[in-house]
Amino acid sequence: MNLPKIAISIGDLNGIGIEIVLKSHSEISHICKPIYCINKNMLLQASKLLNIEIPENFELFETKGEFDIKAGTVSKKSGKYSYNSFMDAIKLASKKEVDAICTLPINKESWNKADIRYKGHTEVLRDYFGKHAIMMLGCEKMFVALFTEHIPLKKVSKKIETEDLTKFLVDFYKNVKGDNIAVLGLNPHAGDNGVLGDEEVEIFKAIKKANKYFDKNIFKGPLVPDIAFSPMSRKNFKYFVAMYHDQGLAPLKALYFDESINVSLNLPIIRTSVDHGTAFNIAYKNEKINTQSYINAVKEAINLSKR
Amino acid sequence: MNLPKIAISIGDLNGIGIEIVLKSHSEISHICKPIYCINKNMLLQASKLLNIEIPENFELFETKGEFDIKAGTVSKKSGKYSYNSFMDAIKLASKKEVDAICTLPINKESWNKADIRYKGHTEVLRDYFGKHAIMMLGCEKMFVALFTEHIPLKKVSKKIETEDLTKFLVDFYKNVKGDNIAVLGLNPHAGDNGVLGDEEVEIFKAIKKANKYFDKNIFKGPLVPDIAFSPMSRKNFKYFVAMYHDQGLAPLKALYFDESINVSLNLPIIRTSVDHGTAFNIAYKNEKINTQSYINAVKEAINLSKR
Repeated sequence: MNLPKIAISIGDLNGIGIEIVLKSHSEISHICKPIYCINKNMLLQASKLLNIEIPENFELFETKGEFDIKAGTVSKKSGKYSYNSFMDAIKLASKKEVDAICTLPINKESWNKADIRYKGHTEVLRDYFGKHAIMMLGCEKMFVALFTEHIPLKKVSKKIETEDLTKFLVDFYKNVKGDNIAVLGLNPHAGDNGVLGDEEVEIFKAIKKANKYFDKNIFKGPLVPDIAFSPMSRKNFKYFVAMYHDQGLAPLKALYFDESINVSLNLPIIRTSVDHGTAFNIAYKNEKINTQSYINAVKEAINLSKR
Repeated sequence: MNLPKIAISIGDLNGIGIEIVLKSHSEISHICKPIYCINKNMLLQASKLLNIEIPENFELFETKGEFDIKAGTVSKKSGKYSYNSFMDAIKLASKKEVDAICTLPINKESWNKADIRYKGHTEVLRDYFGKHAIMMLGCEKMFVALFTEHIPLKKVSKKIETEDLTKFLVDFYKNVKGDNIAVLGLNPHAGDNGVLGDEEVEIFKAIKKANKYFDKNIFKGPLVPDIAFSPMSRKNFKYFVAMYHDQGLAPLKALYFDESINVSLNLPIIRTSVDHGTAFNIAYKNEKINTQSYINAVKEAINLSKR
């Protein structure tokens, strides 16, 4: 059987990523052929520090660079290495040498120290491919796509505009092919017929246009935001489009914190990621760590690569 | 044993309230002495329509008025009656003839038809007592107080101001006496040190001032909004202060939709309420109805009246 190949960017080596990878290899190697973007020397160093043996069949793409791992420390060298590992993974996917990539967490401050001026993986991908990646988070039970992302709350309202949202909805459907997608309103009670805000008019128009585009009744809404994620509503929907960061992510993380992953859609390559940070506080301490998000991220990378 | 007396305002009689009350009386009458604000004729009419017998020891405060119940219908007369029932309950509590009141849902459109120009119960209470009621929703596991409520999302940012928030926090603590209260930030990642918005500076100052006021480290935050309701965070907090409606209520309803209740704090009387509407679509249909929110609301009225 030909297992899909997944490039794994190793994340910040001063953080928890490498431990997650070493502990999860045997499980994920049944469902895919992982290729880890890290060189042998760095891997040996981490494995020694963690006192975890390197698993068999641990295939590497040798990302260049060498430095001393310092558990839980912001560092220029570690930032630079995590960026290079990510770039190697992107290139492998661009050249179709792998079917998808899965990324482990980087540290933003370390990137900053290394003069890497991106806020995170998604921004790099947008720049690299010159395309507007759609950020989607969630797990098998529920995925949330973010129409606006990392902007101040007070700036959200101005971004709610029919044309942009229509394009977003059309792109989103093309990527996920979910035939029933919830689109949230912006205001309390979805504006209560204009009494509590009127951005819902734009949202309503975008839903209508996007449905017309596909000639199917795919998008529903605008839904009342605080009811949209109630158990009854979740029975009807797997995919949600949130108007802003916390509208979608607060309910998601209230429900499925440990299981959630991050997916970049609408790009020439498939990329999934864990939905947590470098966890510097527990790195290299042999504490009980949660590998669920990583394993789910690898699984979703496989799923998406089969479409 | 002297059970606490709770006045029950009957809500919109064309809705589901009276059915909830009749079906829950035997359960709640073990823990309190309910006094239902409805007259005998209206009660008989509803009981006949529902084909549910009036329970024993069903004590009434005879709210005046008479009209034909029309299940699931917006109506001037029904609006007026639900308002009068509510006013009777308020008066009973003001005169200390009951220890607290618990309200069943009214229909806003019916109030409107009856020329009652309030948006809901809380607004009436604010006007009646001339005090700023604090709106808190939740259940035993988790309560959320709303710093701003029914305003458009784009207007929230301007309301985040140190003095007002400090007063809110001080009042809130005086009411709930929870010694560990989570205060949420406004922006994604709580502003990420100002990169994603700066209202967190005001919130931080308010927290500091409120803690100083009580000379205790009660208020924690500003918390990152999308992490605040994660399982791990909820282990630390029972009380949360949300900056806006959906920030608090979307996670709450994702987790505890059926159990949640509504509490008005910071008033001369204690008032709790169910956290759902009149459910016109299932009124008088003998469908399976959920009485959990009502029963929890009565229980919390009792709890609060014992403080």
